[in-house]
Formats: sequence, structure tokens, C-alpha cells
Amino acid sequence: MQSFAIIFSTSLLSAKLIPLIFPFMKTIKVGIIGCGVVGSGVVRVLQENAKVIELRVGSKIEIAGVADRVFPKGVKIEKKIFTSDGFALCRNPEIDIIVETVGGMGIAAEFIKTALENGKHVITANKALLSEKGFPLFQLASQQKKLLLFEAAVGGAIPIIRTLKMDFAGEKITQMKGILNGTCNYILTQLTEGGIEFADALKAAQEKGYAEADPTLDIEGIDTAHKIALMAMLAWGVKVDFKKISITGITGLTAADFDLVKRLGFVIKLIAFAKKESSELEIHVSPTLLPADSALAKIGGVINAVQIYGKNMGSCLLSGRGAGSLPTATAVVGDIIEAARDTLIGKSAVPVCGYQPEKLVEFKICKIEESTSAYYLRFSVKDLPGVIRDISTILAKHNLSIHTFLQFGKPHPDNYRPIAMVLHPAKFGDVKRAVVEIDKLKCVDRKTLILRVEM
Amino acid sequence: MQSFAIIFSTSLLSAKLIPLIFPFMKTIKVGIIGCGVVGSGVVRVLQENAKVIELRVGSKIEIAGVADRVFPKGVKIEKKIFTSDGFALCRNPEIDIIVETVGGMGIAAEFIKTALENGKHVITANKALLSEKGFPLFQLASQQKKLLLFEAAVGGAIPIIRTLKMDFAGEKITQMKGILNGTCNYILTQLTEGGIEFADALKAAQEKGYAEADPTLDIEGIDTAHKIALMAMLAWGVKVDFKKISITGITGLTAADFDLVKRLGFVIKLIAFAKKESSELEIHVSPTLLPADSALAKIGGVINAVQIYGKNMGSCLLSGRGAGSLPTATAVVGDIIEAARDTLIGKSAVPVCGYQPEKLVEFKICKIEESTSAYYLRFSVKDLPGVIRDISTILAKHNLSIHTFLQFGKPHPDNYRPIAMVLHPAKFGDVKRAVVEIDKLKCVDRKTLILRVEM
Repeated sequence: MQSFAIIFSTSLLSAKLIPLIFPFMKTIKVGIIGCGVVGSGVVRVLQENAKVIELRVGSKIEIAGVADRVFPKGVKIEKKIFTSDGFALCRNPEIDIIVETVGGMGIAAEFIKTALENGKHVITANKALLSEKGFPLFQLASQQKKLLLFEAAVGGAIPIIRTLKMDFAGEKITQMKGILNGTCNYILTQLTEGGIEFADALKAAQEKGYAEADPTLDIEGIDTAHKIALMAMLAWGVKVDFKKISITGITGLTAADFDLVKRLGFVIKLIAFAKKESSELEIHVSPTLLPADSALAKIGGVINAVQIYGKNMGSCLLSGRGAGSLPTATAVVGDIIEAARDTLIGKSAVPVCGYQPEKLVEFKICKIEESTSAYYLRFSVKDLPGVIRDISTILAKHNLSIHTFLQFGKPHPDNYRPIAMVLHPAKFGDVKRAVVEIDKLKCVDRKTLILRVEM
Repeated sequence: MQSFAIIFSTSLLSAKLIPLIFPFMKTIKVGIIGCGVVGSGVVRVLQENAKVIELRVGSKIEIAGVADRVFPKGVKIEKKIFTSDGFALCRNPEIDIIVETVGGMGIAAEFIKTALENGKHVITANKALLSEKGFPLFQLASQQKKLLLFEAAVGGAIPIIRTLKMDFAGEKITQMKGILNGTCNYILTQLTEGGIEFADALKAAQEKGYAEADPTLDIEGIDTAHKIALMAMLAWGVKVDFKKISITGITGLTAADFDLVKRLGFVIKLIAFAKKESSELEIHVSPTLLPADSALAKIGGVINAVQIYGKNMGSCLLSGRGAGSLPTATAVVGDIIEAARDTLIGKSAVPVCGYQPEKLVEFKICKIEESTSAYYLRFSVKDLPGVIRDISTILAKHNLSIHTFLQFGKPHPDNYRPIAMVLHPAKFGDVKRAVVEIDKLKCVDRKTLILRVEM
């Protein structure tokens, strides 16, 4: 039977049909481009868990090629599968699946494009690329009927992407909140524990390997914004214009704020927020006060978490390790397994983006000034008569109502002291306008800090 | 091209191939058997979210038949699609997907079997049936190359099943712990808050609709065991002999215990536990003390949660609504969408059980007596000289070491009082033997309570 089939296949059928007839014969071949932190983790997980993966796929998965600028250290691969030419892997007809772990917005896109054009499924963890310039790639994947999977791009090993594409596909998602950057959450957890200033917390994070030498993408909230943009695309089938996402990082926070918000029963977290109503999408990243007993407030250290709200299901919290070589590799390997299973049947059922890319719609993103929320204000004022009168007069003029008020402890040696307030829900634009006026008062020392509050 | 294809399809190809050629033409037809709490929720979600579901599937999903003993109340379906003959739906050649929401171990199995035999994908939430008698059904689904999906069987809308089959498919899962029964967790949360006895907490749960009139399956831990058995099958590719799972419910707990454990810094939860080592599987359900600040300890009310530990990914916590009409229906509809997408491509990539059923292996389940853990003991003793000496002598004889000890407050009016201890990790068998001896002491009033402790 076997020899007959081989004769048959070489004579009458194209090579592509062989796996359909003999799925058990096919070894799935993977090419990995970029063998740094994530790529080397992928090699390791594929090697160490080869047996369980074979049982689950019904076929061996072979690392057929690894590309990087130099031969990677610390991974056990044969010299002969190494190449410094990633494009050669993308074009290699033997290879079924390309894993892109180069990162960044440059050549990574070319690798993905070339791989898709050459009929490979592609796996990536590249949230920057997909969220800012992903659309043509998703379109290409769809045209080529190939997968472009990115479970590792959001929340590392936490199953967020597939959950949005499959589990919650029949749900009307109303709102999503997430702690999506371990570096920031580690720093904020240190600051919440107290006795430390931002710069020291950042340094500690760098020393522990939780923050990059250049931490800008993380601490300025950009990485978090990349992730919530992808989640919004999957949750609502919308094309998110990344430039329109309001992004505030965590660099403007002081130790004093962490002490004040604790006294008010809150914790500060860098929250990615997205909410879709009939006519517009609210999506932003900002340091946010959460009630200390809320689920996300309790997510400490480098752990990531998302809370997804649905019309029917209530809310669902998913949390775990959002970064690191092996947790991220676990997600990539989950994607490799999906791509391998699809390779064996020669088809893919789940559309890229959960929706077909051509069904994605442009959607109006609400201006941050129009977004309504409770807000925390921290003023820094001279300890003089009339200060509260002046501030509260301006707030009242802008129709802003005070929910919580705290002036506490002794004035600083320089006679300036902080005042903390939480306002009842209001439009951010109104709050900002009031604060501009307040900051012109003579009794006000430095710019007032405004933080969003989730009640 | 189109007309050629139609001629070609009607003359040379079987009807089954038409959807492969014209996927856009196909409306996916669903039959729902059993239109109670879950079934009626499924009808509602399919109707209300029809538009978003069509966008995600690329095809309409039509409720083509609903079967129940009587015409269901509170659902908007046309009379003509109703039938009292579920088997007719299972055999209807028009129908692609059967949803079995009859429940129970009886006729439900026949419906599933008939549907699979007639080439339908099947969706069910029936954890009792699948965990106790599921194997032949999984085998049948695999032979028929049809899906048998059951996301709603464990943790309602929480994405546990698909996560184990897909996201964590490349991970060596080491251990899983879960709060998997909302009724029990509601009752235990009430008891933890204090001032209430078990019977009253159960009554309150029944009044709120969180507990059945006959709550046995829930409060005796059987429902929880059904769920962890399915999780273990998916996580490790093992056939779990349900009868070998050690199951202890929550009926033996008293208000006094909740007070004592709180003073020791613990919370009592009904925990489903599974751990696989090279040679055996540890799997059991029991009321368990968790440190009050641990993630699962904070899961309150009817919320469910699972914590899944992997060699590479660390741990991942998934939580949300584990029951109720609409959360459960959300999970069922997610499965319907998977089945619909697979119907359109005419194939399925993900094996039932995550592994092919024929690859599932029998695996030795460790006897509960051999399981090692810390244990909490609550003695009820006469307040007399020599009591502590007698108890501690027996513990020492069995080589059991005391970690924490609490005797607290005044004796009860009848002169009996509780003593709480936490033992250092020991084999359950040794603890049980020591307790049998202790319970024979004259100073001991009633049987000593033994609870597992997760440190």
C-alpha cells in the first residue's frame, strides 16, 4: 500500500497532497528566525517536550533551521541547521512553519511577509509590529490561507489571544482591563510596598533582569498599548489606529503618591483599558488607581493579568507570567502545535484576527478628553490660608465634585505639601481644564498630577 | 467557473464536498437537545449575538431544531423547529452540530452517540457523563472525525478546556488546583465570613438559586471531581478511573473550624487537586486550608478558578463565573463556533481530548493514604490535665510533627473544647492511623476532623 501510494503520489498527485493521504508520515518542519531570549526558549521547549508534543500533534516536530546573525549560545542545535540568512529559511520548501522572534519594526516584517508568500504558517511574538503595522500581514496571511499566530505577543503564557479568537467568539465583550507589562508592574509593586523612589525601583528591576537597559518602551506604556491594541482588534474586529491611543507611562509618579493612595484605599497599576460602545471605542494606557481589594490590584511583581467583561459571561480574569524566555516560549510552542495540526489537515478553520481581516472595520476612537472616569488629583501647595478655597472654587466652576479629600501629616521642610483628592466621575477634558487653572495659582508649587481611578 | 463547479459538484462529487467549494453558501445548522437552564441560554446567546457570530464564522448559524419533553418556556423559537424527539434531530441530515444539554448519565449518552454516528459535531456540558463514561464517546468522535467539545463542562465561561488542549499543549503541566463548584464556594465563603452554620449557608445558597434542591452532587464534591477528572485527561493524556478519585465534600465542616483556621491565617476551600509524577497520578477533591493571602483563597462567592502549574510557564490562574445559564451558554456557543468553522472547512485539526483518544493511557492513581501533605487536625476534647500529653504522645509515635498549635478561648458549656493543629507534611495514611488512636482516648469527645493544608 505504501509503495503503491508513493508511486501514485509521484506520478499523479502533487507533493502537497501527500500529507493529506499519509498524515502519519509527515514530520512538521519548523524554522526559527532570531535565537535570542524567546527563540532559544522555543528551541529548548521543543526539544525537552518533544515526546508530549508528538503525542498531541500525531507527528514529530523538527527544528529544521535556525537563523541569527551569529551562532546562538546556550542552545543545543547542530551546526548544519544554522544559517545567517533568515530569508533562506522563509523560502525553504521543506519548512512548514516559520517562527519570527527577531522583534522590532524593521526586518521582522520582511521575514513574516516572505514566509507567508512562500506558503508557511508564521508564529510571532512581535506586538510592536502587529499592532502598528500588522494589517497588511494579516491580510496576506488570509489571502495565503496561512496562520499568523501571536499568542506570545500578549501576556506571555496567559491564554489571551486564543481565548478572544475562540472561547469568547460568541460573546459581546464590553470592556477589557489589563496589567500587561511585567517591568512596570514590578516597579509599581516596589513603589506600593514603599520606602523607595521611582529611579531606585527601576534600577532594581534592571538588576533583576526585569527591565531592559533602555526601558522606554516599557515604562512609557508603549508596550502595554501594543498589547491592548491587539486585544481590541480580536475582541471587536476593529482596526485600531495605534497613534490614536492615549498613552501615559509611569515615570511621573513619586513615592509620596503611593503613600497617599494607600491611605485612600487604592493601589496604582499601569492599566490598559478598552471599552467599546455602539459608536466609539475607548482605548488608553495610564497609571490608574484601583481599589486595594480588587482583583487586578492584587496582581503583584512581574505577573500580568487581564480582566475581560462580557454581556453574558460576567467577567473573567486570566493571569500568569507575561514575559521571560520559557513562559513566552510556551505560548509560541502552543502556536506551533496549532500550526502543525493545521499543516497535517492542510487547512485552517480559525480566521486570522478571529475575524477575517477584510471584515475588520475602522472604528472611531474616543478622544481621551471625552473619556469619563473618576480622577485622582494630587496638588502640591504652600500651606497657607485660602488654598483649599481657591482650589475648590475652580473645581466647582468646572462642575467637578469632590468624592474623597486627604491632606495629611506635616508640611515638607520647604513648606510645600501634597493634597490628594478623588473626584466624582467627570470628563477628562473638564478635569484637565480645571487643573490648568489651578496650576496657575500662586500657592501651587508644581504641576498637579492627574490619575484615572477605577472605582 | 461557478456554474462549471456546480455541474461538477452535482455530477462527480458527493454532497459533502460542496461546502468545501462554496463555504460562503453554507448556513450552519444547529440542533439543541434539552432546553433547560443551559439550553435556553444557548438559544438566547445564538439569537442575540447572531451578527457578531456570523462575522466571526463567515457564515450564518441557524437554530434548526430544539428538542425537549415539552415546548420550552421563555425562549423565542418557532413551533415548527420544536420536537419532542431528540433522536430525530441527531439523525436529521440537515443538521451539522448537535448541542446536548439534557445532562445526566442516561439518555444523554444515546443522543451524543447517535449524533456522532450520524456525522454531527457534538457539544455538551455534561461533565458527569464525560468523566465517568466518556471514553467510548471520545473514541467514537475520533473515528467519525467529528468534534466532541465540552468547554462548558468545566468552569463555565472560563477558558480551561481549550487552554489545556491548545495553549498549553507544548507544556509539561506539573500540577493543577481548582475551585470548580460555585455552590460549594458560595457556602464556604459565607462560612468564612462567619456567624452562620453549614445548614443555614446551604439554605441561603438554595434561596439564591446557587444550590439545587438536591445539592448532593455539589456539596459532596462529586461535581468537582467530574471536572478535575476531565482536566487531568486533557493535561496528561490519561484515562482517569473516576471511581479511584478520593472525594470528600464540605458537609462535615462546622462554624468553629472556620473561626479556628482564620486565626491560623488560612481559609477553607473545596479544592480539586491533580499532580502527575513519572509513575503515578495524584488526584483528589477535599476541603483544604489555603493561606489567606494565596490567589485561590481570594476567590469568593460563586466564582470558580483554576491554577495550572507548568514546568516552563510557572503558574497561570484562570477565574470567572463557573455556572449559570448565560456564562455556561457563552462557553457552549464558543464551541458551536469552533464546530461551525470546522464544518466549513470539512476537517478538524485539534484531536478530541487534546490527544487522540487511542493515545490516552491508563495511569496508576496514587492511593489517598500515600499522598503527602501538611494536615490540619481539629480535636474536640475535655478540658482536663493530660489531654495534650496523650494526643502529642500518639502523634510522636506515628512520627508526626506539629507545625502550628492553637487552643483558644473558653471551654464550651459542656466542657468540651476544640484544639487546632497543623502538622508538618506527612502521609495521609499515617495521619489517619494516629487519629484513629487519638479518637479512642477518653478525653476525646467526637471524631477528629482532618483537612488537607496547602502551604
